[in-house]
Amino acid sequence: MASKQTVDTLFQVIAARKGADPESSYTARLFARGPEQIAKKLGEEGVEAAIEIVRGDRDKLVCESADLLYHLLVAWAALDIEPERVWAELERRAGTSGLEEKAKRKEQG
Amino acid sequence: MASKQTVDTLFQVIAARKGADPESSYTARLFARGPEQIAKKLGEEGVEAAIEIVRGDRDKLVCESADLLYHLLVAWAALDIEPERVWAELERRAGTSGLEEKAKRKEQG
Amino acid sequence: MASKQTVDTLFQVIAARKGADPESSYTARLFARGPEQIAKKLGEEGVEAAIEIVRGDRDKLVCESADLLYHLLVAWAALDIEPERVWAELERRAGTSGLEEKAKRKEQG
Amino acid sequence: MASKQTVDTLFQVIAARKGADPESSYTARLFARGPEQIAKKLGEEGVEAAIEIVRGDRDKLVCESADLLYHLLVAWAALDIEPERVWAELERRAGTSGLEEKAKRKEQG
Repeated sequence: MASKQTVDTLFQVIAARKGADPESSYTARLFARGPEQIAKKLGEEGVEAAIEIVRGDRDKLVCESADLLYHLLVAWAALDIEPERVWAELERRAGTSGLEEKAKRKEQG
Repeated sequence: MASKQTVDTLFQVIAARKGADPESSYTARLFARGPEQIAKKLGEEGVEAAIEIVRGDRDKLVCESADLLYHLLVAWAALDIEPERVWAELERRAGTSGLEEKAKRKEQG
Repeated sequence: MASKQTVDTLFQVIAARKGADPESSYTARLFARGPEQIAKKLGEEGVEAAIEIVRGDRDKLVCESADLLYHLLVAWAALDIEPERVWAELERRAGTSGLEEKAKRKEQG
Repeated sequence: MASKQTVDTLFQVIAARKGADPESSYTARLFARGPEQIAKKLGEEGVEAAIEIVRGDRDKLVCESADLLYHLLVAWAALDIEPERVWAELERRAGTSGLEEKAKRKEQG
């Protein structure tokens, strides 16, 4: 299927709304309210996803995962971060033992 | 580039570690510790990403985003959720006005 | 001044609303919506407080701290936890070196 | 019992460690690592408390509540916020209908 197209398309749609009239869309309003509001929403979606993991509710976790990814893309757009940078970081970790190394470092940090 | 391959490859790598010796990798240990631990880590990564958004630190947000995505994939694998389901949900929202509708519903919920 | 009276009074006010008509107050509605909703709100308030710590905004941190404490008391009431149990746990830690021990154990966990 | 003494004593113990050798205690180390680290820990404890609310585990919620309160006090000390300010805010809300008003405003915000 089409995760790349999906995420890339969604990122372009989102990024195109920077600077638009806050009344025109939820996304435009998020940008207008600034990084604190975007950060708050991202953190909240993380909490909601965590709760659904514990509850074991697959349908809701799918929805919360989509919410989380959407707000993460908004954050990247707000800070002018190209998605490629994150994919490169993920590839680097998945490479050989990079994934384990980073995760372990983090865990002990 | 290769977000689809990246995410799909990473998901396969992660899912293949379900049931493996917890001592063999950080990922195997996460699965062994169960959903509560995965949920906790995901929520924590959401908080850390939120903090970097507020701080405006792009490099750290790239790293925290990768951490967040990694733990999200672990959660999907733990609950046997295929990534396709989340892409489909995102596509549905990005479709026409679905993105706005869902986001607004959420906001008022 | 009187944190004990404040917290105890607030807890009694909150606990008295368990089972009340959800339309009668925000607190009654929280109880009616169940533990998941209370958990979600508590996690969200934690995120918001964290953001204000990073921003260094004292006035907002005071408000977010009050929000966080309020929702924590709702959670205790929902699970029939007497505040005394938490005070006892805090006293135990502040006792001698208990505070440090627990915190260190946690950090490494 | 002694929630006021507990919290006040703990706050004094914590505040006295500002500027101390980071090697001397976990608390001194938190101060030395700065607001981002304190914010991160507070947000994490909020997530952990949320998870225990969903799981309905009273004993763990008591422990997580103590962790959350401890890190909240560290945050207040780091930003030079007197606990009295938060008690005053809570009292203001618990006053008459202030609690409901604030909570409702928040909910719609």
